[in-house]
Amino acid sequence: MQRTRVKDIFDRETAGGEVLVQGWVKTRRSSGAVSFIQISDGSTLKDLQIVVEQSSPDYPLVETLNTGCSVCATGELVESEGRNQKYEVKASKLEVLGQADPEEYPLQKKRHTLEFLREIAHLRPRTNTFGAMARVRNTMAYAIHSFYQERGFQYIQTPMITASDAEGAGSMFRVTTLDLQDPPRQNGLVDSTEDFFGQPTYLTVSGQLEAEIFALALSDVYTFGPTFRAENSNTSRHLAEFWMVEPEVAFCDLDGLAELAEDFLKFVFSQALDKCPEDMAFFNQWYDNTAISTLEGIINSSFERLTYTEAVKLLESSGESFEFPVSWGLDLQSEHERYITEKRVGKPVVVTDYPKDIKAFYMRMNDDGETVRAMDVLVPRIGEIIGGSQREERQDVLLDRMKQAGLDAETYWWYLDLRRYGTVPHAGFGLGFERTVQFATGMQNIRDVIPFPRTPNNVEF
Amino acid sequence: MQRTRVKDIFDRETAGGEVLVQGWVKTRRSSGAVSFIQISDGSTLKDLQIVVEQSSPDYPLVETLNTGCSVCATGELVESEGRNQKYEVKASKLEVLGQADPEEYPLQKKRHTLEFLREIAHLRPRTNTFGAMARVRNTMAYAIHSFYQERGFQYIQTPMITASDAEGAGSMFRVTTLDLQDPPRQNGLVDSTEDFFGQPTYLTVSGQLEAEIFALALSDVYTFGPTFRAENSNTSRHLAEFWMVEPEVAFCDLDGLAELAEDFLKFVFSQALDKCPEDMAFFNQWYDNTAISTLEGIINSSFERLTYTEAVKLLESSGESFEFPVSWGLDLQSEHERYITEKRVGKPVVVTDYPKDIKAFYMRMNDDGETVRAMDVLVPRIGEIIGGSQREERQDVLLDRMKQAGLDAETYWWYLDLRRYGTVPHAGFGLGFERTVQFATGMQNIRDVIPFPRTPNNVEF
Repeated sequence: MQRTRVKDIFDRETAGGEVLVQGWVKTRRSSGAVSFIQISDGSTLKDLQIVVEQSSPDYPLVETLNTGCSVCATGELVESEGRNQKYEVKASKLEVLGQADPEEYPLQKKRHTLEFLREIAHLRPRTNTFGAMARVRNTMAYAIHSFYQERGFQYIQTPMITASDAEGAGSMFRVTTLDLQDPPRQNGLVDSTEDFFGQPTYLTVSGQLEAEIFALALSDVYTFGPTFRAENSNTSRHLAEFWMVEPEVAFCDLDGLAELAEDFLKFVFSQALDKCPEDMAFFNQWYDNTAISTLEGIINSSFERLTYTEAVKLLESSGESFEFPVSWGLDLQSEHERYITEKRVGKPVVVTDYPKDIKAFYMRMNDDGETVRAMDVLVPRIGEIIGGSQREERQDVLLDRMKQAGLDAETYWWYLDLRRYGTVPHAGFGLGFERTVQFATGMQNIRDVIPFPRTPNNVEF
Repeated sequence: MQRTRVKDIFDRETAGGEVLVQGWVKTRRSSGAVSFIQISDGSTLKDLQIVVEQSSPDYPLVETLNTGCSVCATGELVESEGRNQKYEVKASKLEVLGQADPEEYPLQKKRHTLEFLREIAHLRPRTNTFGAMARVRNTMAYAIHSFYQERGFQYIQTPMITASDAEGAGSMFRVTTLDLQDPPRQNGLVDSTEDFFGQPTYLTVSGQLEAEIFALALSDVYTFGPTFRAENSNTSRHLAEFWMVEPEVAFCDLDGLAELAEDFLKFVFSQALDKCPEDMAFFNQWYDNTAISTLEGIINSSFERLTYTEAVKLLESSGESFEFPVSWGLDLQSEHERYITEKRVGKPVVVTDYPKDIKAFYMRMNDDGETVRAMDVLVPRIGEIIGGSQREERQDVLLDRMKQAGLDAETYWWYLDLRRYGTVPHAGFGLGFERTVQFATGMQNIRDVIPFPRTPNNVEF
């Protein structure tokens, strides 16, 4: 007999018929001549109740069951008299697949701290919180693909190992096959020509430059893959390894890009609410009681647009006392971004046209010679969630910007070639996937929204 | 006016109405008082013809257009009299966005070698071959997600940076932030406690072990992400960085896994044929005239099953002379696999139950004590395309196998914990994405099916 998932059982229109279910025991209790076993198979937040009568030949097995045991139960699917459950299984047969010694199994009925669960990241997916997290994360990841696929974008896998540096700076991990203990040397210096790729290589910090290559051939593309930062940041918002989504669109200016970003965020958040209503309700109840209303607010609002210059004026005239200074030419901090989106505008805001000196060399220069066609999308509670720009498509202007930034034009020969041969206006943005999941679920720490977080001194599992 | 994609134009039921199209010039020719410009925007293999009459005020611009230039054209969409095209645009307005000096632009009308195109991987997506490749690759990547999502699997992102080694061996890239020139040392030895993660770390060779963690909580999961091999293999089938798909299923045995693999391959290949008919016809015409028939053969056949022992007997009694020896206990080579699937069975074959000594420690031991529940899926032309197994879920047996393999049980404490607490039968397989795309398109070299190949001494772009 085929296994039926718990989710599929609760999706049934009516009870009736025999089912075979498998899963892990959450709890067990006895009442008179009957035992009730709650099992989960991770397909939904809801547990399924297995009812075993004392008269059953398998009843002695029930007494051996503890939290974490795995079981297989066959029986009739009947309507449940319990309050929170539609159906239950009246077991005619029960089999124990694997035991879990209650003296040793770390996950017991009581609530555990998130810090403790991080230490047992191999077991935490069995908890309600991390089961819900996995399902919401999966839904949002697939929503990202669906959104771009339905709009005719091509998914491009850009390389992880690179010899270049997309931001012109940034801390990168070195990738090597050299013997660290005793590397080959030339005149005392480590000889990178002996390394696997014949030169120093690193883990990518962004697939943008490579995505531009494909946008200037296929018009509409996106990447979705891992990126890396070797920053020694032990905060609740930083990971050394995280996933990033980067659409890149030819024949598109900053207005088109801002529209794309708005549609994109609304779609991904809608999917999380529509496809994971129970999981989102769980986060809303236990972790952040504004989680759902914040997403609904975004979905139902039309994003506001402000230039950076307008944003600075607004902040300067706000009368608020900020921790960080506000002045034209300085970057906006989270507190400024949150003030704008939460207190002044009351909905998401796209801030555009930042001073060139605080933005990357590849952003398109405005006619004022002072600002570039950058945009940050700000949302309540965290501030910036998306950063992007129209790209500098004019070869001479780009070359100037690279010189000012101290970048070597020869290293970027192929990036410049894109402007030399059939250049077109194009634009793109980046969205950190984990920060987006963190935002959607309201989790305090980014280490709790990724299967196995990589942070300084932490690479377990 | 909004841009219309070339693909969307050819998808229209009827001609008529004004359109704005943008793209790159493939060719241009004049005939009497008219010029014909073929443009591509990468949304489809088909070029769109723009017709500009000599009487047009923009006609002088036409004379400046060469292969690779980018243009924007507005005009009426009319039925074309040309043989191979349904519609064309009668331009009322033509704008040149970017030039491409014909003396310098490397992509000219003539056919270029694939070797040459690898050197200009930033421009090759503009060719018919690599445009088609990007679209087929995209379709297959999304088909992978769709297949698992429709079956209720959760997409899990397993980590790239790891301190463990999923295969018990294998060449791995080291990931470090230590100064290679002068790393910190303790008693003369490089002090890895000073490295970013406080210990030596590597790029993953497989997400399987971490996927098992999630399968033993969520039941049905899959990964799809980059994996790495630091092997000095300069062949047409090896990459140092490639993408892999790894489903992992709880409550599943080897039979269930073989069924999943069969359904999966059929779905992904069907999607390539259904969604990219022109691109696949292109590969079939120019690169491998068995590409389409091979895929159709797989889709329409029911996969055969053979045990390894049966396969060896079949090979021994074949009368064929193979380059590599055939004998029970030796691994099957490509020539053996191809002989079985191509010449003997005539369709895909799932070979199961390999000798334990040639397979990994985590594969489930059979009762004979000699073979394990491994499976390889063999297809014509390449042999093995999928490798997988039922996993050893019995803690004591797994521990024995690890000892025999010389693995340290303490390193794998969390992997053993999965067998200690609520263990269940489970199984999974791996599919190399690039090899699958290579197989589907019939390309000879794997470097031509990934945007930017990483191989020994090759890390450009």
